[in-house]
Amino acid sequence: MSPSLSKKHQKLVDGIQAGKKRSIARAITIVENDEETAAALIEALYGFSGKAFVLGITGPPGAGKSTLVASTVREFRAQGKTVAVIAVDPTSPYSGGALLGDRVRMDRVAADDGVFIRSMATRGNLGGLSRKTVDAAIVLDSAGYDIVIIETVGVGQSEVEIASTADTTVVVLSPEAGDGIQAMKAGLMEVADVFCVNKSDRDGADRLVREIQNAVMLPSNQKEESSWYPTVIKTQARAGDGVQELIAAVKSHEAFQREAGRFESERVRNTRLRIGRIARDTLTDRLSTGHQQLLDQLAEEVVARKKTPYSAATELIEQYLRNAHKAD
Amino acid sequence: MSPSLSKKHQKLVDGIQAGKKRSIARAITIVENDEETAAALIEALYGFSGKAFVLGITGPPGAGKSTLVASTVREFRAQGKTVAVIAVDPTSPYSGGALLGDRVRMDRVAADDGVFIRSMATRGNLGGLSRKTVDAAIVLDSAGYDIVIIETVGVGQSEVEIASTADTTVVVLSPEAGDGIQAMKAGLMEVADVFCVNKSDRDGADRLVREIQNAVMLPSNQKEESSWYPTVIKTQARAGDGVQELIAAVKSHEAFQREAGRFESERVRNTRLRIGRIARDTLTDRLSTGHQQLLDQLAEEVVARKKTPYSAATELIEQYLRNAHKAD
Repeated sequence: MSPSLSKKHQKLVDGIQAGKKRSIARAITIVENDEETAAALIEALYGFSGKAFVLGITGPPGAGKSTLVASTVREFRAQGKTVAVIAVDPTSPYSGGALLGDRVRMDRVAADDGVFIRSMATRGNLGGLSRKTVDAAIVLDSAGYDIVIIETVGVGQSEVEIASTADTTVVVLSPEAGDGIQAMKAGLMEVADVFCVNKSDRDGADRLVREIQNAVMLPSNQKEESSWYPTVIKTQARAGDGVQELIAAVKSHEAFQREAGRFESERVRNTRLRIGRIARDTLTDRLSTGHQQLLDQLAEEVVARKKTPYSAATELIEQYLRNAHKAD
Repeated sequence: MSPSLSKKHQKLVDGIQAGKKRSIARAITIVENDEETAAALIEALYGFSGKAFVLGITGPPGAGKSTLVASTVREFRAQGKTVAVIAVDPTSPYSGGALLGDRVRMDRVAADDGVFIRSMATRGNLGGLSRKTVDAAIVLDSAGYDIVIIETVGVGQSEVEIASTADTTVVVLSPEAGDGIQAMKAGLMEVADVFCVNKSDRDGADRLVREIQNAVMLPSNQKEESSWYPTVIKTQARAGDGVQELIAAVKSHEAFQREAGRFESERVRNTRLRIGRIARDTLTDRLSTGHQQLLDQLAEEVVARKKTPYSAATELIEQYLRNAHKAD
């Protein structure tokens, strides 16, 4: 299936395992732009991954995620952990000012050798975001970082899904009107292991905390007996207040999951979904690449109402299976 | 492939073609919740669809989309057109207050017999959004509405994709800081046929218009010679200002596309993508449903680093193809 690595890329793999930032950066660029080489790269790196703790941080735009991530990174560093950050946020910067502030803050953090920060290019590229993010996480994991943070904007469905592939998922909300409702609508309540009410000095912070605690108790959000109930932590990321508590909550969740034997089984569950996604994407590529003409013809027949999209899809699949069979 | 319709559902089809709102509503609920019946329903309805003009309206949260949609609907009605609206917006309501305002506004509009408004339930449901939305549009199309409006929040990749399956796509921005940058990052520039700068009485409206006009001219956004260049319209949706101009711009785009023979070919292109998506989803279902045990085993081997996600996916596909072959 996947091509074997060229000498050049083998050197890249060595550089990554040696933790060379330039090699890591180049590998992530490959993951972003060259699917085939990326697959080969992951083949080569995968065996060295799996040691990092993956932390997902998501939430609506403007909740202060980037600032929170920056202070979280500083706190992990103070605890002697190395940290890598992948920021997947097509809507960020939400405001030019905030960006500047965060960037300065981030740059100061990124100067540190035990820290790697990379934002994924998503502009105009609406596909494969999930694959690219998870592969980037594998690169950073195999480079030996203790913690890999995946930051996504919790608005689009894909973005929420990405964050929820982490070992622990933190949902960041701010007391702005509607954030609570919005979180529920966006399916954020379902993926949260820890809630972070940021900008907790603002009006409505306590109301939001209550809102969340009530929502967690809603029948639709009930879990089995023995399972973890999301904790709610108040932070003021800009001042760093509450960040230690946030990290403590994340660690409690990790400990609980390990205790309950759920840490590993969650990774199996996520990996299961991932294998399914890769298989799906591979089949999709084969379906379209192998059958351009048939697809053109089917599309025209569907637009002319001679066929329906569903019957056309069935025809496409049957043709593909016939060819695959011949290919054996 | 798809099951044939029960008597009950045949009556539903009749009700939809008779334009009965209750039948339409029930059909959309089926589209949302029961994939199999939905497929059969679309099989039955598809031949009667294709007459409606489909208008996509997208943009970041808080740009005033819902208010704009409401005034657009009123304007279309004033021109004697019947209009159906599908609102896909997991983040809406962005603020409780705005919602209330919009809902009142919407209710007044929805009382009109020539108008149907439905928001798609997305809470906690992160899959199949695109299929459900397009199928809902087919239901409304086959019910005989002249215009079908699909409103999505232009932040997540899926949401942007959904809106861009329309005949004409309007991207709504407001002069808030960063909206322009955000739009570019979210890939909104690429999908826009018409830009709507809403809340145009606010500071920065003219700057945003210039920002957009410059962005449209960026090399990366250049199109072939003969193709349409997005127009920029200023509106104040709450007061209804500029809405006639917006609709005029939409009509110019439609006319241009028809003139250039692109109206039909765009539908073919979108349908082509759609057939591919349906085929992909069908294969994904078969892959997972038929191979639970294999998937479990592969996932565990991958987590144990005995295999990589990519080699596991290849194995899954090969197994599926062998079974499909046997099944012949």
